[in-house]
Amino acid sequence: MMKYLIINSGSSSIKYQVIEIPTETVLATGLVERIGEGSGRLKNIAFPGSDRELTTVIEQPIADHSQGMMLVIAVLTDQEKGVIADTAEISAVGHRVVHGGEDFRRSTLITPEVISVLEQNIPLAPLHNPANLDGIRVAREMFPAVPQVAVFDTAFHQTMPRRAYLYAVPYRLYEQYRVRRYGFHGTSHRFVAGECARLLEKPLDACNLITVHLGNGCSMTAIENGRSIDTSLGMTPLEGLVMGTRSGDVDPALHLFLKQNIGLELEEIDTLLNKESGLKGLCGMNDMRDIHSAAAAGDERAALALEVQTYRNRKYIGAYMAVLGRVDAIVFTAGIGENDPVTRAESLKGLDVFGVRLDPEKNNEHAGQARCISRAESTVRIFVIPTNEELAIAREIADLTSE
Amino acid sequence: MMKYLIINSGSSSIKYQVIEIPTETVLATGLVERIGEGSGRLKNIAFPGSDRELTTVIEQPIADHSQGMMLVIAVLTDQEKGVIADTAEISAVGHRVVHGGEDFRRSTLITPEVISVLEQNIPLAPLHNPANLDGIRVAREMFPAVPQVAVFDTAFHQTMPRRAYLYAVPYRLYEQYRVRRYGFHGTSHRFVAGECARLLEKPLDACNLITVHLGNGCSMTAIENGRSIDTSLGMTPLEGLVMGTRSGDVDPALHLFLKQNIGLELEEIDTLLNKESGLKGLCGMNDMRDIHSAAAAGDERAALALEVQTYRNRKYIGAYMAVLGRVDAIVFTAGIGENDPVTRAESLKGLDVFGVRLDPEKNNEHAGQARCISRAESTVRIFVIPTNEELAIAREIADLTSE
Repeated sequence: MMKYLIINSGSSSIKYQVIEIPTETVLATGLVERIGEGSGRLKNIAFPGSDRELTTVIEQPIADHSQGMMLVIAVLTDQEKGVIADTAEISAVGHRVVHGGEDFRRSTLITPEVISVLEQNIPLAPLHNPANLDGIRVAREMFPAVPQVAVFDTAFHQTMPRRAYLYAVPYRLYEQYRVRRYGFHGTSHRFVAGECARLLEKPLDACNLITVHLGNGCSMTAIENGRSIDTSLGMTPLEGLVMGTRSGDVDPALHLFLKQNIGLELEEIDTLLNKESGLKGLCGMNDMRDIHSAAAAGDERAALALEVQTYRNRKYIGAYMAVLGRVDAIVFTAGIGENDPVTRAESLKGLDVFGVRLDPEKNNEHAGQARCISRAESTVRIFVIPTNEELAIAREIADLTSE
Repeated sequence: MMKYLIINSGSSSIKYQVIEIPTETVLATGLVERIGEGSGRLKNIAFPGSDRELTTVIEQPIADHSQGMMLVIAVLTDQEKGVIADTAEISAVGHRVVHGGEDFRRSTLITPEVISVLEQNIPLAPLHNPANLDGIRVAREMFPAVPQVAVFDTAFHQTMPRRAYLYAVPYRLYEQYRVRRYGFHGTSHRFVAGECARLLEKPLDACNLITVHLGNGCSMTAIENGRSIDTSLGMTPLEGLVMGTRSGDVDPALHLFLKQNIGLELEEIDTLLNKESGLKGLCGMNDMRDIHSAAAAGDERAALALEVQTYRNRKYIGAYMAVLGRVDAIVFTAGIGENDPVTRAESLKGLDVFGVRLDPEKNNEHAGQARCISRAESTVRIFVIPTNEELAIAREIADLTSE
């Protein structure tokens, strides 16, 4: 038995899990929030979903990521509320890293060289990579003796061919600044693709899939013979589908229009497109449950937001069907993808001519597990498969440390 | 018999034709260039394609659009080189106008009110509409007694539903500034759709089509029952497909990256995306013949540019197939669409699973007329149909002035 600590370190937060391998049991899951703000907070759930489940909440100022991680260790090793006797029980630490650029095609053991490459990639992800590096630095101090593994959101998409990852901009921007499509949510797309292959009873490298990750961030991936060949998020996590607060695709001349006609600066435009757009921009809400309630109550803009989002999903599904030719299955995952039958049905509307036949009853069932929701005669099968990025990271660690 | 003067007025140019209706004969075609520059130039071809064809070139400084138009009238009415005895023979003037905003769903007789609406729309097309207005002003002075008709690049696309024309940005940007997808090349898409319906021997309003306009500018339109329901160009002619010098789609966060990492200002970024991108950005060339020669001679970047362009075409065709469900035909038009069999074949690659079967022999034939290039068993027919925007404008005038 191995116990891994999985860390997702944000600018003011640390999300974590302790996972036991090979049983794939979650021993603890938790979140440290508001690091560096006046009032910090840690919430830890020990043995979630079991008889022994125990939630601990600690509220106190948390100055930095070091202090946050010390609090995590304290609660994990607490004699009453903890799940391990001491830190020596943790045999590896896994880190979710947003941007691996072109340097990482797969997960990697963290070395000083890896850290310096991640530092070089900061311009590609100026908000995320520094926070991920904070988490790595602190974990290396506190767990100096165990392997630390970086798992990249971008790595799965490094198999994309040039025609899919190059923008039609001056080629020197790619050569000198690595301007290109990278794609994100790779850990999630890879995880559900693997689960889907299992359900199809086919080797993953014989599967053509379209994986649709709809959460607060949204992305879609065209997978050919198990490898990502195109994906909707781009150089940053702003391109593509309509997301909670992110615009996805817009006319690239919009920026100059907003400057010339409203006087916005480029930094403000970037914030507007990242934080005030998407579903929120269209209808003022970005929680899908609120949007459905409002739409049901006659809020026209809420209905419009749903329509704009699912219409764009449909276009991307069509685009990826054209790219793949044969498609074995379409997989929905993440918060909205797993839990919103309306979004799934609308996103697939009109695709029956291409052999995509949703079973409305199966689509409307509520179930936490992976399941098929297409009709028997559907030539393209449709699945709902819960994503589990922490488990995916744990499996990556197991693969990498057993080699 | 009626004779119409058709004008396409640019910032430093006037393109024109004189067309006889209902014979649809082109009596003259010409171009005034370098208006306002040191050395102006007019080239006029009288009775093009006939025994009487006669080319006239005049080189002299041309101060402004008035002077340019006077030169046009002089050559058209010239006793030897001209095609009409005097200006009274012209019974209407048609103007191509780039941006009609949401105000014009179809062509319209130009009145002072129409001119003032066009002036209000200048922020939407700051480069094009002022030049179009110059042409209108001058033509009204010189042909005060005849109807003047504005034909809009955007009008055909005004049938798009909100889900297709709204961006997922704050809704107030639409309400206050009319930020939305408009689409362009509408006259061309409408023209080839009508021709295609004739070839299909079906009423246009029963046809579902994907029209693919590939020239220096490129756009694709999804046509349902004869009406545009989606199109790839956006609020401006920058979004969508890979064009000669325009990028089409990019990550909307690219702008801030270029500012922060290269120090470009937004105006420079806009110029880079409009003038230095597309095929030219990828391989340094934007003439398709040069690109094919270079690719054949082993120039890898030329081959790459072709690949990136046709791959994106394929994705858009797939997206529009998903939106339309049933597709009667795919139509290629404009310079590249009409003359480049390689681009057509590559853009349709892998679509045979959706019933799209190109006939390689028919595709490779060189012919100036409309023709079918799909195999007999293709459920989606494929056509090459030469576009003719001037003739389309002449037909609009005939329709509008006979009502």
